[in-house]
Amino acid sequence: MASISQIAYPPPFSDHRLSELQSEIQDWQLTHGSLIKVFIGDDDGTILARPIGVSMFPTLFPKSNFEQALQIQESYNELYAAIAEDEVWLSNVLSDLIESDPFARALWKIHQRTKREGACLQPLTLGIFRSDYMLHCPPDSRELHADDTTSPSVEHSSSSSPLEIKQVEINTFSCAGGTHGNIATNMHHHLNRIPVYQTPASSQHPSYPTHPVTLSSLPSTNTIASLVSSLAAAHTAYGPPEISVRSTAILMIVQPNNINICDERPIEYGLWSRDPPVPCYRAKFPLDILTHTEISPSGALLYYPPNGVGKFEISVAYMRAGYDAEEHDIRGIEARVMIEGSHAIKCPSVLAQLATFKKVQQALSMPGAVERFLPPLKAERVRATFAPMYALDESELGLRGRELAKNPDMAVHHVLKPSLEGGGHNIYRADIPRFLEEMPEEEWRNYVLMEMIRPPKLSNVLLTAGGTYKGGVVSELGVFGTCLWKKGKEGRAQMVDNKMAGWSFKTKAEDVDEMSVVKGYGCFDTPCLVDC
Amino acid sequence: MASISQIAYPPPFSDHRLSELQSEIQDWQLTHGSLIKVFIGDDDGTILARPIGVSMFPTLFPKSNFEQALQIQESYNELYAAIAEDEVWLSNVLSDLIESDPFARALWKIHQRTKREGACLQPLTLGIFRSDYMLHCPPDSRELHADDTTSPSVEHSSSSSPLEIKQVEINTFSCAGGTHGNIATNMHHHLNRIPVYQTPASSQHPSYPTHPVTLSSLPSTNTIASLVSSLAAAHTAYGPPEISVRSTAILMIVQPNNINICDERPIEYGLWSRDPPVPCYRAKFPLDILTHTEISPSGALLYYPPNGVGKFEISVAYMRAGYDAEEHDIRGIEARVMIEGSHAIKCPSVLAQLATFKKVQQALSMPGAVERFLPPLKAERVRATFAPMYALDESELGLRGRELAKNPDMAVHHVLKPSLEGGGHNIYRADIPRFLEEMPEEEWRNYVLMEMIRPPKLSNVLLTAGGTYKGGVVSELGVFGTCLWKKGKEGRAQMVDNKMAGWSFKTKAEDVDEMSVVKGYGCFDTPCLVDC
Repeated sequence: MASISQIAYPPPFSDHRLSELQSEIQDWQLTHGSLIKVFIGDDDGTILARPIGVSMFPTLFPKSNFEQALQIQESYNELYAAIAEDEVWLSNVLSDLIESDPFARALWKIHQRTKREGACLQPLTLGIFRSDYMLHCPPDSRELHADDTTSPSVEHSSSSSPLEIKQVEINTFSCAGGTHGNIATNMHHHLNRIPVYQTPASSQHPSYPTHPVTLSSLPSTNTIASLVSSLAAAHTAYGPPEISVRSTAILMIVQPNNINICDERPIEYGLWSRDPPVPCYRAKFPLDILTHTEISPSGALLYYPPNGVGKFEISVAYMRAGYDAEEHDIRGIEARVMIEGSHAIKCPSVLAQLATFKKVQQALSMPGAVERFLPPLKAERVRATFAPMYALDESELGLRGRELAKNPDMAVHHVLKPSLEGGGHNIYRADIPRFLEEMPEEEWRNYVLMEMIRPPKLSNVLLTAGGTYKGGVVSELGVFGTCLWKKGKEGRAQMVDNKMAGWSFKTKAEDVDEMSVVKGYGCFDTPCLVDC
Repeated sequence: MASISQIAYPPPFSDHRLSELQSEIQDWQLTHGSLIKVFIGDDDGTILARPIGVSMFPTLFPKSNFEQALQIQESYNELYAAIAEDEVWLSNVLSDLIESDPFARALWKIHQRTKREGACLQPLTLGIFRSDYMLHCPPDSRELHADDTTSPSVEHSSSSSPLEIKQVEINTFSCAGGTHGNIATNMHHHLNRIPVYQTPASSQHPSYPTHPVTLSSLPSTNTIASLVSSLAAAHTAYGPPEISVRSTAILMIVQPNNINICDERPIEYGLWSRDPPVPCYRAKFPLDILTHTEISPSGALLYYPPNGVGKFEISVAYMRAGYDAEEHDIRGIEARVMIEGSHAIKCPSVLAQLATFKKVQQALSMPGAVERFLPPLKAERVRATFAPMYALDESELGLRGRELAKNPDMAVHHVLKPSLEGGGHNIYRADIPRFLEEMPEEEWRNYVLMEMIRPPKLSNVLLTAGGTYKGGVVSELGVFGTCLWKKGKEGRAQMVDNKMAGWSFKTKAEDVDEMSVVKGYGCFDTPCLVDC
């Protein structure tokens, strides 16, 4: 069986055909909200938008790995719902971080202040999670002893072992990209149908056929509809309002001046478009929460829309803000306390947010940790997606991690990640030893060392804000999961609803370390599934 | 019954509420392709877009007038299909213009060169028409003798006679705005549902209630789907390709570098999305026609997509280009000849394009003209929507028109329109006498004098490219019609399919004369239907 890197792909398009394809792509993006704001108004409120980054061709991805990632999502949902209800385990895992990191501390305190009210009032929690994977070529023994001759920023394997998927991270809070990913995949389906990817047989190299994009090789996703369904189901599960003349509504809590509204709005529109409509209001965090909501005597979260008409009882508080430390000043904390302590179903709770910290991912890699939450078979399948990682603490594994991080020869196979959300602060490869040297040793424990994932060598053409990129690429498959759970007996999570909810697929140039699409590095993409 | 101008509307929103509404509108536009390109690439092909002009509130419109305009559309389809097949009548009406106007002459010659081949090969023609109306307050006798105290640019009537609709013009060629109008109306429905238009009872003036926008007052349109259906039906009516291994496809013939692709692309996507898909390719006029099409020995129009895969037999040539005189240089004429002389169903034919000249509209206002083409009852209903108009020729009516145009007191109630397409060259009111004085009298016959339509005084808030406008507005209702007809016995049009196909509604500031949305004057809107 040929290695995926040996497939000739994408097809060799002339500049003329690429520019034709680009025009098809841009027009599709303009007409389908695959955009990002580039300018937020002057006094007049004028706005402009540009297409968000997308790949010009779907990127190759092994079918079996794709299916594995989708199948495992319900177990990940179950795992993280269980973690979010296990305050004892979480506080243990996060204790160091709560001490040293102001954001973790702030969230923990919000949980402490509200846990009695919130949990008594509302046993249900909604999770919208996204688990991100990369393809990984497991090194064979030859390679482990060979000199490192690969590119300085990405390791590629020439091994012919089957590819694996490795989890990069899991997001349990304010997951973005579901809408953009869905739209980009619809776009690649359209491009394939029109069919702009077809190449005449005469222009193909006879002995080295190009892999054709076929209808069967492009999977579909219904991420937007799935997220809308999960929110609507939670809205229904909330039940009737405490006073029958009042109506219930979902509150989508958003950041002010977000340039990425195209990822949020379609979810809101999807709720309003249901029959009957599920009312969904937007509130900016934290100001609108402080000025347009109140808690009723019995604990309901009430929202007053700015038009002064009516008062709504919030069924689900859908958090699309509150993921940055900077958002949690005094007002931010007060707003979170109001939401968290209310009767509304939180999407998700503060504890579920804390479960997204890298420190938890690292703790789960310890023997027995996953097995605390999942039955053996599920635990084994989840564990198979973990990349080796080490907390840089003083445990036995931690000391082994410190050895690897300080050794320049070993550090080049690793990435150092802070136990914080948001990305953008990772330290890569050869930079790790010096970074640690310049930091007081007591702060090392706030970092996790992960073995670098070694993606296969693949190529594509990307249409980014900075122009067209042709060359080696690295992709990330993000699988969405939605789950509604109930605090059960002995504080265990009892799943009410648990679904794989679609996926987003992002691709970046191989020499860029960050995947952020909003910042202009990553591009939304679609896997072109191949058997290999 | 209260006059429409006496209804308090739109509701008195504070600046804060207007800015909230603006943000709802802009985000909706960004996510639904209600946009216009503002910048067409540098070398990198980067593009930017901005929201197209829309009204912030639906504009009031009498329900009975709205229904009348929709009901009459099938008769207008029938009328213009009949005209497009009556070469004798058309050549008679247009003879002066063909002599004096290079564009009319070019089109006429194309028809002459191709009529034998084209008509023999393909008896079917597809029409996508749009008939534009304004509300008109018929003057009562008092007013006819009163001093003109209205605004210098728009006359408003204080008459309490029922409002009428008057046809501004009918477009039979390359009709735009169907997609934008559809999207804007979907937007107003969404805004009404969320419900951002609601105002608390306490803020309403007790003795002067604001007209509420209600679900029942906002009509829906399915213009995009209707246009797609008509094209798909014509594609089917074309029948199988002349050689069974070939496939048929629709060719959408477009202008290069069009900034208004959001109005075109959804029709193309709608065709591809049908089950089975109706292939629709885009060809830029005229270059792609000359380089990517050929005529088969038996007269089929064959198209070669730029990817070099396949060769398609064109079922329908859908013209979204070729409406400007400037497009008809030598290459443009050759491209039109190829299309017109082929077996493809033309949407529409050159004769149907000639039927859109203002001169035809004026000729129809002559006694007996409509009655030549329609049975008495239909003719009467169509005629009821005509505004008085005069060709400035030497006929009896023409001489009466010249009198009105030269008299400054009478000219102020009129508009002078060239018998050309494209708009933008109209001469209004007091400017007319001097304009005619400066022109050789033999050129007067290229103009038509129309009595100004006197719209009712209505208000709205418009969100244009130039900022927010609050104040008096004038609206235009464009009713779309689709029809497929066959050249019948004795050259009469025999209707195969005839439908009212939705509408677009546009509104502009009352002191602006042009309605063009692309140029930034007009705004897409939705009628808020009222009984009055």
